Amino acid sequence: MDIASTNFENVGPFTRAWEWLKALPVKLWAMAVEFANKMKKLGQDDPRRIVHSLKVGVAISLVSLFYYVRPLFDRFGENGIWAVLTVVLVFEFSVGGTLGKGLNRMLATLSGGALAVGVDQVATLFDGTGQPIVLGILVFIIAATVTFMRFFPALKARYDYGLMIFILTFCLVSVSSYKDDEVLDMACQRLYTIIIGCFIAIIICICVCPVWIGENLQNQIANNLEKLGNFLEGFGREYFRLSEEGHSTDDDKSFLHGYKSVLTSKDKEETMANLARWEFWHYRFGFRHPWNRYLKVGTLTRQCAYKIEDLNSYLNRESQTPPEFRSKIQATCTKKSMESGKALMELASAIKTMTPPSSAKPHIAKSESAAKGFKSLLQAGLWEEIDFFEVLPAATVASLLVDVVSSMEKIAESINELATLARYESAEHIIEEEKEAAGSLHLQPIPPCSSTSGEHHVITIDQPSRYLP
Amino acid sequence: MDIASTNFENVGPFTRAWEWLKALPVKLWAMAVEFANKMKKLGQDDPRRIVHSLKVGVAISLVSLFYYVRPLFDRFGENGIWAVLTVVLVFEFSVGGTLGKGLNRMLATLSGGALAVGVDQVATLFDGTGQPIVLGILVFIIAATVTFMRFFPALKARYDYGLMIFILTFCLVSVSSYKDDEVLDMACQRLYTIIIGCFIAIIICICVCPVWIGENLQNQIANNLEKLGNFLEGFGREYFRLSEEGHSTDDDKSFLHGYKSVLTSKDKEETMANLARWEFWHYRFGFRHPWNRYLKVGTLTRQCAYKIEDLNSYLNRESQTPPEFRSKIQATCTKKSMESGKALMELASAIKTMTPPSSAKPHIAKSESAAKGFKSLLQAGLWEEIDFFEVLPAATVASLLVDVVSSMEKIAESINELATLARYESAEHIIEEEKEAAGSLHLQPIPPCSSTSGEHHVITIDQPSRYLP
Repeated sequence: MDIASTNFENVGPFTRAWEWLKALPVKLWAMAVEFANKMKKLGQDDPRRIVHSLKVGVAISLVSLFYYVRPLFDRFGENGIWAVLTVVLVFEFSVGGTLGKGLNRMLATLSGGALAVGVDQVATLFDGTGQPIVLGILVFIIAATVTFMRFFPALKARYDYGLMIFILTFCLVSVSSYKDDEVLDMACQRLYTIIIGCFIAIIICICVCPVWIGENLQNQIANNLEKLGNFLEGFGREYFRLSEEGHSTDDDKSFLHGYKSVLTSKDKEETMANLARWEFWHYRFGFRHPWNRYLKVGTLTRQCAYKIEDLNSYLNRESQTPPEFRSKIQATCTKKSMESGKALMELASAIKTMTPPSSAKPHIAKSESAAKGFKSLLQAGLWEEIDFFEVLPAATVASLLVDVVSSMEKIAESINELATLARYESAEHIIEEEKEAAGSLHLQPIPPCSSTSGEHHVITIDQPSRYLP
Repeated sequence: MDIASTNFENVGPFTRAWEWLKALPVKLWAMAVEFANKMKKLGQDDPRRIVHSLKVGVAISLVSLFYYVRPLFDRFGENGIWAVLTVVLVFEFSVGGTLGKGLNRMLATLSGGALAVGVDQVATLFDGTGQPIVLGILVFIIAATVTFMRFFPALKARYDYGLMIFILTFCLVSVSSYKDDEVLDMACQRLYTIIIGCFIAIIICICVCPVWIGENLQNQIANNLEKLGNFLEGFGREYFRLSEEGHSTDDDKSFLHGYKSVLTSKDKEETMANLARWEFWHYRFGFRHPWNRYLKVGTLTRQCAYKIEDLNSYLNRESQTPPEFRSKIQATCTKKSMESGKALMELASAIKTMTPPSSAKPHIAKSESAAKGFKSLLQAGLWEEIDFFEVLPAATVASLLVDVVSSMEKIAESINELATLARYESAEHIIEEEKEAAGSLHLQPIPPCSSTSGEHHVITIDQPSRYLP
């Protein structure tokens, strides 16, 4: 290629175009290979994406039976196409998304169709020329009103798709009613096929490797806490190594950048919470699961991340802390940072396992005492000999760490509230409940075992009990 | 209501239900009034929303002429419904949104339909039973592949709707081809009506009070800078008043909270930039307008906002700065804060008016010199008598303000780059260009005038020149 490009300068435009054309297949092939590699990585990063694609394929193939199977085609005819259309439009990655869109679509089709049939009845009161005018005016008024309603934030968050389908159905049915007298019959046929399409999408989405967006939200919140924890666990060591040696060793520094994605996670979390509200009972989530509390934890996590962003900026500054000052604050700062990091990790694991965050308490207490230690260190009045300018950055870092500790306490508090509201239960409590259940069935108490085998045990007790009188 | 609720405790469930039912109309009426008030406020906040709703109503009424006007109905028949459907689905609030969806829909319908017709030709090679099986397998493969492609971030950002419509069209045409022999004809009819629907939506969206999302993005970036500027202009005064008097006066404090929305503006800005790329030439924006640079300014603005969030936390702390220390730093801190605030306001106004940010330079220079003044103040070594613990918060605030100044300088630099790339021009330059244009047409030079009348003048010169030989 280098030879070709040097030659380009001395040749005419046609030769250049020819060279470009000759190189085109190679370029296209390289692009295709790159695209395929990216696709492969996408699938490896989250294999649920591949499963989702296959599920959509299956759902569409299933729903196209409306056309291929004669009795079904004879029953629904051309309207079967609405079932195909519904599956394509409604099938989302998560159960919450599919349920939300499906329910929105069914309700909106029903109400929009009903209103259109009513409007059609009104329009038939007018004669030939009046009818399209009345229909047109009514379509205009309703389309404009509902379009305006879509700007309403509370409706937009959960019912935007439904409002659009309402306009769509209303316009389709009322407009086509002008040429088609059997409008009620047509509206019903479409409603049936749309309901069937929605149910096929929802059932396949739930039954085949479901992706519960509520669980995703929970993991996202916990992962964000882990990212902050990772940073804090490493920060103290890293900062004092830098200020001592002036440079850093070549270790892996990725733990120092993970928190960046937390800063801008708000919109994603809110969307997830909105979708999670559509999901019904599964595992230990219910209809009334306190999703808002997860958002509150997310907000506090972000506030902590803003402070960490500030801490991080001190890692990239050239400053040499005087050794006597460093030796005074190093121990307390490293402890504050390390213990609050550990506390965040424990809080994250509490959210993931849905257990009360009791194991975080000792770390919170330790980081609190380290923060208090720093305050008394400052008040001790041993600072007469220091150069204020040289000491200020390190002192700011230490006082930022105090802020991080108090920010972490707020997170812990909100997770405690969440644990109470969402009825997080400790592993021992679950095992004790199992024992009681076993006792009431006059079975031998079970020795403490891991949570998975515990769950298995509950099932074995539960199954025979169904057949007891 | 109070009397009723006290009575409730002594009455039976039926009486209670009856009371509730009697109160229902009043409650419903109150809810309706509240909803209407919210709607009114929504319209008052942004009257473009009302205009958009009316535009959608007009577009749908227009497109339903396909049904009401006999020659059009005779030409397109039942397929006219696809034009109605297209307008409802494609019409978005902004020009960028409508253009993006419209182009996506047209291209996807064309390519999806073409592929389906090809697949149909392959399937006809097989006999009766083989045909639906071959069709089913091909539908499965293509639906699953394209669904997987929708996860690809680069495609998801701009072509997600197109990929969905591709699956939709392909499935609809290939599935219905099994029962309908005139598949090519049907596909063409639908394509025509969809193209007509898209064009009606796009034309009405652009011609009637268009909302350009690119301009919105520009305003959003400028408003965010203004919010930070507002905070900084007020911060210095507010902080030192608090640390002096221990409490704040009852002035309006809203300027201290405006910046909060900047912290989480990332997703919104990215969505806007993605839509803005669809918009063609208008006012002084072109196809190749550097939208990415706006995003860069947005990112730097957010980084400045994180520091401001930190500054804000110092406003809510109880701390009494020793008067001798306060008197030393108050002047330089207030100046840093005030001048960087003013600089941000000037930068915001440069973006809004698309002029080079030269008027911000004096403020940047002043805030830089104030920051340097603070550094030399610290290095002066006059700090032997101070209580480190009492001084630390104020010193941290002062050093945070130094960070804010350097953050503001980065913003100014990126806006300078943006101004070069987007060819921002000064008002004088525009007037001079006009003069030159007037000179070349042998007209009298125009006296300097406001930009609006200047634009008007250009048009009056331009129009006769078209008719010159």
